Amino acid sequence: MHKGRLEAFSDGVIAIIITIMVLELEIPHESDLAALLPLLPKFLSYTLSFVYLGIYWNNHHHLLQAARQVNGSVLWANLHLLFWLSLIPFVTGWMGENNFAKIPLVFYGGVLWMAGLAYYILVRALISHHGADSVIAKAIGRDEKGIRSLYIYTAAIALAFVAEWVAAILYVLVAIIWLVPDRRIENNLTK
Amino acid sequence: MHKGRLEAFSDGVIAIIITIMVLELEIPHESDLAALLPLLPKFLSYTLSFVYLGIYWNNHHHLLQAARQVNGSVLWANLHLLFWLSLIPFVTGWMGENNFAKIPLVFYGGVLWMAGLAYYILVRALISHHGADSVIAKAIGRDEKGIRSLYIYTAAIALAFVAEWVAAILYVLVAIIWLVPDRRIENNLTK
Amino acid sequence: MHKGRLEAFSDGVIAIIITIMVLELEIPHESDLAALLPLLPKFLSYTLSFVYLGIYWNNHHHLLQAARQVNGSVLWANLHLLFWLSLIPFVTGWMGENNFAKIPLVFYGGVLWMAGLAYYILVRALISHHGADSVIAKAIGRDEKGIRSLYIYTAAIALAFVAEWVAAILYVLVAIIWLVPDRRIENNLTK
Amino acid sequence: MHKGRLEAFSDGVIAIIITIMVLELEIPHESDLAALLPLLPKFLSYTLSFVYLGIYWNNHHHLLQAARQVNGSVLWANLHLLFWLSLIPFVTGWMGENNFAKIPLVFYGGVLWMAGLAYYILVRALISHHGADSVIAKAIGRDEKGIRSLYIYTAAIALAFVAEWVAAILYVLVAIIWLVPDRRIENNLTK
Repeated sequence: MHKGRLEAFSDGVIAIIITIMVLELEIPHESDLAALLPLLPKFLSYTLSFVYLGIYWNNHHHLLQAARQVNGSVLWANLHLLFWLSLIPFVTGWMGENNFAKIPLVFYGGVLWMAGLAYYILVRALISHHGADSVIAKAIGRDEKGIRSLYIYTAAIALAFVAEWVAAILYVLVAIIWLVPDRRIENNLTK
Repeated sequence: MHKGRLEAFSDGVIAIIITIMVLELEIPHESDLAALLPLLPKFLSYTLSFVYLGIYWNNHHHLLQAARQVNGSVLWANLHLLFWLSLIPFVTGWMGENNFAKIPLVFYGGVLWMAGLAYYILVRALISHHGADSVIAKAIGRDEKGIRSLYIYTAAIALAFVAEWVAAILYVLVAIIWLVPDRRIENNLTK
Repeated sequence: MHKGRLEAFSDGVIAIIITIMVLELEIPHESDLAALLPLLPKFLSYTLSFVYLGIYWNNHHHLLQAARQVNGSVLWANLHLLFWLSLIPFVTGWMGENNFAKIPLVFYGGVLWMAGLAYYILVRALISHHGADSVIAKAIGRDEKGIRSLYIYTAAIALAFVAEWVAAILYVLVAIIWLVPDRRIENNLTK
Repeated sequence: MHKGRLEAFSDGVIAIIITIMVLELEIPHESDLAALLPLLPKFLSYTLSFVYLGIYWNNHHHLLQAARQVNGSVLWANLHLLFWLSLIPFVTGWMGENNFAKIPLVFYGGVLWMAGLAYYILVRALISHHGADSVIAKAIGRDEKGIRSLYIYTAAIALAFVAEWVAAILYVLVAIIWLVPDRRIENNLTK
């Protein structure tokens, strides 16, 4: 099975998710600066989620670049990832609406955790389809960044109950770790 | 006529349908767990519809993979399918908003029924265009799963008047039946 | 300049327009049949506009199939068409919300008129780019259906001031005329 | 890395941004002409932003046409551009809602400024990836139109504090300057 349509469909879904989040920024009826102030936490959570979705699109792009073809398991692993990504606008809006309160922070981390797990499953499905000696298997290796992210999300969720700002900082930290594009694949492909 | 643009347009429409459903999950103004509780039925109906749309995208992908080209009838059969799929966000939201009440359950089943019929018509239009000896005709065969689904939807709609939960379970059952990807085509293509 | 990206962008915009219209069908808070009744005019106007957008996508698809390449004028003629199509959700919702009242019917016709004109300009831009002897010029010919549609829209807008239902019927009539896919191009391409 | 998926993803995001802006045109509950009047400033700001997004898509299309491939920096420079474009629906709606008042005009200019800068960074990233002797470097040259736009935006933002209408006219002026498609690239490619 060709990978083209899986890429196109994922592009479409991620493009919509990354864009409809901006609909949560309700347009104020007043025209002064003070009217924008209550939108600041929403804008910050929007920016963070935009970066996360950009990272996912970027890594998805690198990952599929290394894939030669897909099968039924890969299609469903991919849909499973898109499901968790589709919940990001909701938790983003909830977190922004409530000024980074404890429970919304925990749910934000929970959705990131599940999306991270879903990405990991997608990687495994692709490797198992291409074989252990394939370019994609060598390029990904043990996917340490992915596993490390899940550890940090777990810590962030636990620490949110102690101090909300620690969780928020950890989510920003993971985004920074991933902002460096996935050079593992790029390096292996050009060898 | 090439099939590429039909695939791209369908990908776009299904990607939007699967994504805007999440806009029905209204963001609570409170930040406690209790604020999420009323969203639970909406979340469940969202998840069910996400799976259904994933199944349709998946089967559509398999089906078009086996097609060599399309004609005017196929274009319209496809748009007819997309029309019924486009109503899924409405019935999903209505069913979730009203906690899986009788009439919304009946309409949810009605839209699934029409979408199932529209898919069947699309399959026929493709087979009639490619001829009875074509790969696609052999791969699809009598499309028993599709016909069986229509029977189960009919039963679910009738039983919703007796006991709502039976209809809900039958909708989940059809989703499970289809979750197994359409191996008929995959098998025939690799023979 | 290749035509691929113009097709992809148009597919994306039309896919979104055809889908977000369904967001105007507000989900009722009640679960009985009576709650759906006020949505009936909205549903009818949604269905009509879905068919119109399906027709535009279909004809756009046929048209670009006959084109070999595009230039700057074609890109802008295409964006101009998309602008008028993007107003269809607004006039559709307004017409449905007000039960096919006079002024919304007039504006619905006005947007259809402008979209029809924009399509005509796009056809001219493509023909002028490819030359009078090209496949696309021969396939389109004098585009009588397009010109006839503009006449009927004009009549519908004028008659809306006399009797609303005549305008509504004329809009349905144009949709039926176009539902027959544009065989001119198909015939010429296969000659 | 191939450029195809970057184009497809950007097409998707820009298609959604250009389309969801129309959702800000709230459908009136009355059916007379007077009900449309309060929407006029929103419609004007929608039209202006539609043209701007059309220009960005057009120039993006020309730019990527001249590119042979992309790398990690280009992907992120592109996402950075999409981030600022994604804020256009918000500032468009705010400007229209408040009848082109001072502060919304300033923020509209601010988002255009950042989008212009982001486009400039994307151009630099592409040139640095292809080398100073590449087709793309020669085709773009010093990108005087882009730099001139930033100057005009700066003037518009400053003048908005003196007279709102001057800022509005300057935004329209920049749109007109860019409406002429980027012939630099077209000319160089066909030499």
